[in-house]
Amino acid sequence: VTTNDPTPYASDTAVRPDGAGRWRAELTDRWETGNKTPNGGYLLATVLHALAADMPLPHPLVASATFLRPATVGPAQISTEVLRPGRRLATGSATMSQEGRPLVHVVSTFRDGDTVSGRSWEAAPAPELPAPEDCASLLDSMAPDFSIIGRMQYRFERPPGWLGGRPSGDPSATFWIRPEADEQPDLVHLALMVDAAAPVVFELGEFVTATVELTVHLYRAPVPGWLTCRASTRHLVEGFHEEDVELWDRDGRLVAQSRQLSMLS
Amino acid sequence: VTTNDPTPYASDTAVRPDGAGRWRAELTDRWETGNKTPNGGYLLATVLHALAADMPLPHPLVASATFLRPATVGPAQISTEVLRPGRRLATGSATMSQEGRPLVHVVSTFRDGDTVSGRSWEAAPAPELPAPEDCASLLDSMAPDFSIIGRMQYRFERPPGWLGGRPSGDPSATFWIRPEADEQPDLVHLALMVDAAAPVVFELGEFVTATVELTVHLYRAPVPGWLTCRASTRHLVEGFHEEDVELWDRDGRLVAQSRQLSMLS
Repeated sequence: VTTNDPTPYASDTAVRPDGAGRWRAELTDRWETGNKTPNGGYLLATVLHALAADMPLPHPLVASATFLRPATVGPAQISTEVLRPGRRLATGSATMSQEGRPLVHVVSTFRDGDTVSGRSWEAAPAPELPAPEDCASLLDSMAPDFSIIGRMQYRFERPPGWLGGRPSGDPSATFWIRPEADEQPDLVHLALMVDAAAPVVFELGEFVTATVELTVHLYRAPVPGWLTCRASTRHLVEGFHEEDVELWDRDGRLVAQSRQLSMLS
Repeated sequence: VTTNDPTPYASDTAVRPDGAGRWRAELTDRWETGNKTPNGGYLLATVLHALAADMPLPHPLVASATFLRPATVGPAQISTEVLRPGRRLATGSATMSQEGRPLVHVVSTFRDGDTVSGRSWEAAPAPELPAPEDCASLLDSMAPDFSIIGRMQYRFERPPGWLGGRPSGDPSATFWIRPEADEQPDLVHLALMVDAAAPVVFELGEFVTATVELTVHLYRAPVPGWLTCRASTRHLVEGFHEEDVELWDRDGRLVAQSRQLSMLS
């Protein structure tokens, strides 16, 4: 799916009010995964736009999304509820449905917009990669046969093994990522981006996996430019696996961190 | 707080029915943290007992808890809601309140009880420690001046640096853990145990931290005996930090994995 829309993220995650605590969205075909359904991170970002509009504090800090059913392209409804309106932190929940059937349930805690002065500490610097212009585009190796690939740009030092038909056996990856369009990611956009890459269990030869639950910590808005992404799965337990994703901005600052529990099938 | 109760976990996390989707609990003073309030994992386990009783599938697989207010010792009410009754997976939410004020909101997905035959893979074996009987008890170094310490047994190869007044600067720890009483942990009990150790940011000299959100993956019931616990914080961002905890059973199998987002104050 190609698009001439200069802001596909903003267009496709927009929500319209539909009464108190009720919102409408239109899920498009531009964010489909290899499962041929709208991506979970795309649903989460859309839900967070509705929730953000109803919360007393502006910035999402942490969001947990539980996926109940696959979504389809078309209209969707979102209902929101404020669980705890606070001054420093405020928590709400929201459910996105289609035809009365819930698709995803989200709980998110927001914080205020003051510049935070708390302490920072990092166990290790951001992973190093050759400059993006010295890396290969994913599209050099792969036809975009599902649409979300066209919404992001990916740059790899070496193409993933699975892409050449030889899964490496190491379910991890480090690469550059940025939106395909000229849209500067904010915190909600990051909640989509942590779920916008191929599952690293592809490197174990497992190509069908569905997210049960995804939690994302949204630490900072990134500075403009490429983001560094590291994804890894360390545990696959009787068909269930976690995947951790971290995103750093061009200044080397951690901006978001996610973990999902997924199920092979 | 000492106790002659041979099953303090079972006694203190029990819930009594109070109408459809409503439960009552009695929070005791036996699970207090250094903040002198009942531990978040203790609240989560109690809520999961209520939710498990109302769900169509028996085994919790993943739970996300968002902490809204500190709890106090005394009566608490739990309301549950089934969000998606499924045959393979089923999701519900629950809120624990005291005097009409919500304390913690939990979303949890359960699965059926069939023996799972899916694939397993591990990035690395469980960390190795000297045998528990060759390790030091935490109580050798520390007076149990808050009660949850007495509910667990901890064995360390070397006592944590912070305990001797010299934070190591490395916010990680590996140690043995098991319930103090002779209670064999099940999946719900593991949801308490992932939150039952001292925050590893103590090793950064940060001694006041409160959990905002905790997600736990409950993979397997452990075999009897000591569990190996690894806890680490890799990112502290402007006062907010994650903490990852993994638990392995005596057979070296991963049984649970958690991540929490916490806030220094």
